Amino acid sequence: MLEQLKKEVYEANMLLVKYNLITFTWGNVSGIDREKGLVVIKPSGVEYDDLTPDMLPVLDLDGNVIEGDYKPSSDTATHLELYKAYPEIGGVCHTHSPWAVIYAQAGRGITPYGTTHADYFGTTIPCTRKMTDAEIKGEYEKETGTVILEALKDIGVTQMHATLVHSHGPFTWGDDAKSSVEAAVVLEQVAMMAYNTEMLMLNANGKTERMQETLLRKHYDRKHGPNAYYGQGKK
Amino acid sequence: MLEQLKKEVYEANMLLVKYNLITFTWGNVSGIDREKGLVVIKPSGVEYDDLTPDMLPVLDLDGNVIEGDYKPSSDTATHLELYKAYPEIGGVCHTHSPWAVIYAQAGRGITPYGTTHADYFGTTIPCTRKMTDAEIKGEYEKETGTVILEALKDIGVTQMHATLVHSHGPFTWGDDAKSSVEAAVVLEQVAMMAYNTEMLMLNANGKTERMQETLLRKHYDRKHGPNAYYGQGKK
Amino acid sequence: MLEQLKKEVYEANMLLVKYNLITFTWGNVSGIDREKGLVVIKPSGVEYDDLTPDMLPVLDLDGNVIEGDYKPSSDTATHLELYKAYPEIGGVCHTHSPWAVIYAQAGRGITPYGTTHADYFGTTIPCTRKMTDAEIKGEYEKETGTVILEALKDIGVTQMHATLVHSHGPFTWGDDAKSSVEAAVVLEQVAMMAYNTEMLMLNANGKTERMQETLLRKHYDRKHGPNAYYGQGKK
Amino acid sequence: MLEQLKKEVYEANMLLVKYNLITFTWGNVSGIDREKGLVVIKPSGVEYDDLTPDMLPVLDLDGNVIEGDYKPSSDTATHLELYKAYPEIGGVCHTHSPWAVIYAQAGRGITPYGTTHADYFGTTIPCTRKMTDAEIKGEYEKETGTVILEALKDIGVTQMHATLVHSHGPFTWGDDAKSSVEAAVVLEQVAMMAYNTEMLMLNANGKTERMQETLLRKHYDRKHGPNAYYGQGKK
Repeated sequence: MLEQLKKEVYEANMLLVKYNLITFTWGNVSGIDREKGLVVIKPSGVEYDDLTPDMLPVLDLDGNVIEGDYKPSSDTATHLELYKAYPEIGGVCHTHSPWAVIYAQAGRGITPYGTTHADYFGTTIPCTRKMTDAEIKGEYEKETGTVILEALKDIGVTQMHATLVHSHGPFTWGDDAKSSVEAAVVLEQVAMMAYNTEMLMLNANGKTERMQETLLRKHYDRKHGPNAYYGQGKK
Repeated sequence: MLEQLKKEVYEANMLLVKYNLITFTWGNVSGIDREKGLVVIKPSGVEYDDLTPDMLPVLDLDGNVIEGDYKPSSDTATHLELYKAYPEIGGVCHTHSPWAVIYAQAGRGITPYGTTHADYFGTTIPCTRKMTDAEIKGEYEKETGTVILEALKDIGVTQMHATLVHSHGPFTWGDDAKSSVEAAVVLEQVAMMAYNTEMLMLNANGKTERMQETLLRKHYDRKHGPNAYYGQGKK
Repeated sequence: MLEQLKKEVYEANMLLVKYNLITFTWGNVSGIDREKGLVVIKPSGVEYDDLTPDMLPVLDLDGNVIEGDYKPSSDTATHLELYKAYPEIGGVCHTHSPWAVIYAQAGRGITPYGTTHADYFGTTIPCTRKMTDAEIKGEYEKETGTVILEALKDIGVTQMHATLVHSHGPFTWGDDAKSSVEAAVVLEQVAMMAYNTEMLMLNANGKTERMQETLLRKHYDRKHGPNAYYGQGKK
Repeated sequence: MLEQLKKEVYEANMLLVKYNLITFTWGNVSGIDREKGLVVIKPSGVEYDDLTPDMLPVLDLDGNVIEGDYKPSSDTATHLELYKAYPEIGGVCHTHSPWAVIYAQAGRGITPYGTTHADYFGTTIPCTRKMTDAEIKGEYEKETGTVILEALKDIGVTQMHATLVHSHGPFTWGDDAKSSVEAAVVLEQVAMMAYNTEMLMLNANGKTERMQETLLRKHYDRKHGPNAYYGQGKK
């Protein structure tokens, strides 16, 4: 059943490898058939090299496995909370991509500093609060969904396709499985650039010395000046 | 028409992929036929894997599409401002390459610190002022050209092949499409090295401890000393 | 003899290349046959491109070469100390992977900041004390094992699969040769993320300016708003 | 003439590409035949994809081209100064590899912090003084050699295979062309790790918060505890 959705979700999972967002099995993508109310997700702990579309389990929104021989991702309950809360979501992705994790580990959202961010995310990408001990010891993966929904309460999912879970990492989503992975790719790039923008501003009054003007002119002119002598000369 | 120019501009666009300057479709290169006053540019939002030379639209300098089934890049008006202002320019390139974007997001130009910079750029690579709300809400892409021209006013394009647009990213140019991409590659490298030079100088008085002299000698000598025992020995 | 173990240890050594943990010959993996009390390890200074399973020497736990034409890795004595101290270890790996080395050079263990760390390591990854001059000038590689065991005294190897040797680099281990390499891969990733988490917190009160709201809305809307004009439009 | 040396120098130049030390044509390797007193070097400005062994010019130690249709590297005079000063050198390499350039741009030598450094370099890797205006405007490339020799005066080339030229980049050397490239690879790695060790020590008293113990145990135990539920379970 759901062969087309399995194929899409399989291909979206393999994009995690293509875009270098994954080490070993640290990530999972799901997709939903809204009419049937059924979700397809990566099986837990299976290596990407071994994955095939027919290995992907099918679940209902209560987490019951409807079809498949493999256990679904251990993060399944988090995906389901997102699908239940937001009918406009068609795919969900979770990774441990490093720059997004770095912000999650620092417990900080990602401020918009430029148009790359603005092209995909309409405001600050939120980071959840820390989970309580009771949440961690209880239905941990479901409660992970709870703190994500809490972080999104005032933002919604129309202009925001990502949330960082405190001390953990990013969840992203989109119209379908593929677009949830695209959001993960952009998030990682935006996080790396935000981090380094902030570090550069730390340094705004740094007095690193400009190079010597004589050396600057020498090098520019030996390549581009009237007496340039770099290269084999023009014919 | 302009089959040769389309081929050159197509190949220059594909260099963005080769040199890792591009994520998804975030970049575009154009070239101009000065005699005919016609510009060839990447179509908007088309993935690089799907791009072929015949998909590239041809425009006049007023932005009218003369040939082609695809909408030109949404940044086209910025390219045209550069071509109109500087007759010596034959190609223009726009990317969101991370280190150039980081400087743009910090609103800072790139100071020359070494000969790698000097080999391509004759002075500080400028960053534009912030655009006004009126400019952003008006003819945004054309006004992006306006602030670039303003930043270049005292420098010119003879010794400067790049400008950073504040909170956005780099535009670069050259004699033709290919050389505009080369300028983007060098800019990215120069930006990464300038950033880290500045960070290192922050740290100039850092008192990181030198390793133990005994350990230094031990390792150097076990590989290179008279009683070296690393490796399989000389025959 | 031990053809199967040689194959496993060979393949584990080649994973160092696959996971980019190695420059030239800077690393080695070993595995042990506990019943026979014999260890198979990479030969010293042999390039990975030239390595074949039958080149791997077999040693007893006292370091006597039982089989093989090649000298074992110069770090062999460190591996043997680990095997002798911890019967639960089946494979040991040593690399100079950069982020782990950076912590080792700073003489610092790696604090757990997030679930990526927690998925593999049950507490702070320890860094050894500096070795004494007597240890360095004496049986250096054996004493390297001594300081590792000292660092693990209160932690054990059940929940900890890695130790950093001060001013040197990481040793990792696991149930077999392959899992010792997996620990090295995770350690490198965890170290990179811990480093950048700490740098980001340095910067927690940084006042990098959020981008202009008008520009944020402009870019979000030109791609996703009702009048979006990026891309080729919907069919 | 010198076909074997040309082949070796050609292959060493191509290693610059393999080890990612090169952007465009920014680097050059040479080798010397000490008996004949002749040097083979990369031609200036030729792209690596286009290079073949027979394109490499042959020069005497005064810089006269003895054979070849191509102009030698514009840095040739620097190579020759090194060959003339140090009879033990058989190959010289120049790159703009980023981390080495970053130290050069900061005008700082590279302190030994660990055994990776000690395995190849016997002490601090020196950085030259700034060149004077007279040196830059005079025989610039020859004078670049002069400041390198000055920096090496008290160290010699027996235990040191690299020098950084202030505001420029690294020169490295070895027994032959290939080993000069190996020194460039190690230098780049050592520079990257020294930089980040220094940044980490800046941060030594940083009070980044350790993650919650409950979350640490939860994640470790869901993968490795007695009730682990990650993955497909053991058969």
